Amino acid sequence: MQRIENIKLATLCDEQNDYGLIADAVVIIDNESIYWAGNALEAPATPSADIIDGAGQLLTPALIDCHTHLVWAGSRANEFAERLHGKSYAEIAEQGGGIASTVRATRQASFTELLQLAEKRARTLMAQGVGTIEIKSGYGLDLTNERKQLQVARELGRRLPLTIKTTLLAAHALPPEYQNDADGYIDHIVTTILPSLVDEGLVDAVDAFCEKIGFSVAQTERVFEAARQHGLPVKLHAEQITNQHGAELAARYQALSADHLEQLDEDGVKAMAESGTVAVLLPGAFYFLRDEQVPPIDLLRQYRVPIAVATDANPGSSPIHNLQLMLQMGATLFRLTAEECLRGVTVNAARALGIEHEYGHIKAGMKAHLALWDVNDPAELTYQFGVNPLTTLWLNGVVHDHANTR
Amino acid sequence: MQRIENIKLATLCDEQNDYGLIADAVVIIDNESIYWAGNALEAPATPSADIIDGAGQLLTPALIDCHTHLVWAGSRANEFAERLHGKSYAEIAEQGGGIASTVRATRQASFTELLQLAEKRARTLMAQGVGTIEIKSGYGLDLTNERKQLQVARELGRRLPLTIKTTLLAAHALPPEYQNDADGYIDHIVTTILPSLVDEGLVDAVDAFCEKIGFSVAQTERVFEAARQHGLPVKLHAEQITNQHGAELAARYQALSADHLEQLDEDGVKAMAESGTVAVLLPGAFYFLRDEQVPPIDLLRQYRVPIAVATDANPGSSPIHNLQLMLQMGATLFRLTAEECLRGVTVNAARALGIEHEYGHIKAGMKAHLALWDVNDPAELTYQFGVNPLTTLWLNGVVHDHANTR
Ligand SMILES: [Zn+2]
Ligand SMILES: [Zn+2]
Repeated sequence: MQRIENIKLATLCDEQNDYGLIADAVVIIDNESIYWAGNALEAPATPSADIIDGAGQLLTPALIDCHTHLVWAGSRANEFAERLHGKSYAEIAEQGGGIASTVRATRQASFTELLQLAEKRARTLMAQGVGTIEIKSGYGLDLTNERKQLQVARELGRRLPLTIKTTLLAAHALPPEYQNDADGYIDHIVTTILPSLVDEGLVDAVDAFCEKIGFSVAQTERVFEAARQHGLPVKLHAEQITNQHGAELAARYQALSADHLEQLDEDGVKAMAESGTVAVLLPGAFYFLRDEQVPPIDLLRQYRVPIAVATDANPGSSPIHNLQLMLQMGATLFRLTAEECLRGVTVNAARALGIEHEYGHIKAGMKAHLALWDVNDPAELTYQFGVNPLTTLWLNGVVHDHANTR
Repeated sequence: MQRIENIKLATLCDEQNDYGLIADAVVIIDNESIYWAGNALEAPATPSADIIDGAGQLLTPALIDCHTHLVWAGSRANEFAERLHGKSYAEIAEQGGGIASTVRATRQASFTELLQLAEKRARTLMAQGVGTIEIKSGYGLDLTNERKQLQVARELGRRLPLTIKTTLLAAHALPPEYQNDADGYIDHIVTTILPSLVDEGLVDAVDAFCEKIGFSVAQTERVFEAARQHGLPVKLHAEQITNQHGAELAARYQALSADHLEQLDEDGVKAMAESGTVAVLLPGAFYFLRDEQVPPIDLLRQYRVPIAVATDANPGSSPIHNLQLMLQMGATLFRLTAEECLRGVTVNAARALGIEHEYGHIKAGMKAHLALWDVNDPAELTYQFGVNPLTTLWLNGVVHDHANTR
């Protein structure tokens, strides 16, 4: 047993939009779980526990990055540099740039190469206090390479003490083999890619990119239908560039989350509220794409849609692997409150992954994924960026030495 | 002697707007200086040198953060959180928030407390490959506390292998003792604070905040005149919120730099071009303040004003201590090219500090402040953010173990 004393505790337990703060708290860890958490005055005796003096620091749940595309190869730096010199997206696409270049490089990369690249990124997130990462496929776009991406994600979960949740995003873009035949590719997903990878135990959830430049609502629904037949929850990249009413479709399928949502309207918000679908906001992509349309935060608040925040870490639209920075951007760019930002990477991020009964808030029975921060006020996690305030990270009850994690 | 082989080298030597790239280079370090740098085929023999295999990585000058307010105490997180809940700047100022709260906390803090806080921030910058930091006073606003801030800055330069340049920014804001008497405070600066701290060897340059809410052009000029009498170079916070024509004043005093510059006009650009004054752009403050007026990049290019980029690290308007992120923001928010961004934190940042003959580019005779990066293309330093690609940092020829620097 470990007994963490002399801490401020942000339990994130409340249904209210706050931190669930306890000014002088104790948390007791038994093996990989939380045995007790609460006010120090009410804490049970634990004569044999190891005592950890928190020195007045803040304990929160370990952070959860609930939307990433962490497994890829290649670099889009050159393309980025060319755009800054005035080259258009169209010219770059014509040269084979854009997502096509990431798909090519990811297909060419070996399992081991992909694993090394993804592990570096995952360790970087861990060093920021992240204990759980969702990882999507979507740069393979065929059975072999979607499998390879998800196998890398699973292997990361074995090599590192992180909790990894995998999402099949075969419906991310059209592969070269199916140019001008989106319906044919959807057929291939629902008859081959999805059933095979589900059978192999590689898929925790299913996602799609519902957009003019992605897949239609009808095509997305076919993917969702297949997911439902396999008993898998769904998520959706929705209303990022245009309003396709994807969020309403997602809500009809009780989606765990609809993500991006810059163009979401009130009907979509209502539908999400009724189905309990989490709104996953991605300020990194908003920033990187110089978007100007902020997601409808006030409507999400009004209808009490849970808001999560994630990195969307990916080489095309959010090459920014820092969840702490997403708190800062969530507040500065979207005017989320500091409470909403922290809830967005803990309790609501857990909901967006369907793991809210084990992760994302602190009470007895939950997994001991915990982060200790050298800050006085939880708002500092959102306000300041740069000096990493993480001092200790517990993953399943074991202290992880993040000093060696860069 | 150390011989770094098998590297790509970005010398940053050219006057052109590029990296000065050498595809297969050797750099030879002798004690604290660069003995030789260039194409591997032309490298002299060094039979007794220690060989360092760069493994094809990219070597650049160590980065230079040429505008920071690194020494302060207190936290403005709570104020930030309140603003997100809708409280206005005016209400916060009325409660004693804003810069007044940082001045109070900085005055109250001991030398040792301030040193600990600043050292953490400086080490964070070092971990990003920064070898030189400019540090301004300006939260003391009286002789004792301006001295304390600059003494902390000097002490940082002794404790850490960093190069520290100090800037007296007593004319940052009006201290409570001089409310409604800006001219009286300027008198105090030019008759007491400035001469005393210069005599004590604490001042490398002199700066002021020329703005409607700061000091007028006439008041700024009195500070510049005093600096000139002491033989010190000047810098200026200019044209951030309104166009006060501060850059033209700065140019008349051959200022090393004029900084911020969102509201700079063509006359100001011309004046800076003629005086060789560097334009220090601060995208972190632009981002944090949600500014919409981008500095006149095209005019700066047209008149060949050297452009630097810095963090402006400070608790009020840029609580973002990450110079790598400033490269990313310089490109994304200001549309600087990747070349301009890297020049902005190396060769042009050195010019903004008057140290361009020792730091900021790589050739024989320069100080061996060098950074080795695990990237293929220098553009990656600007494009991607999050996974820190720094692998080795030399400061005055000595390898600094940044793994222990967080
Ligand atoms: Zn995504
Ligand atoms: Zn400043």
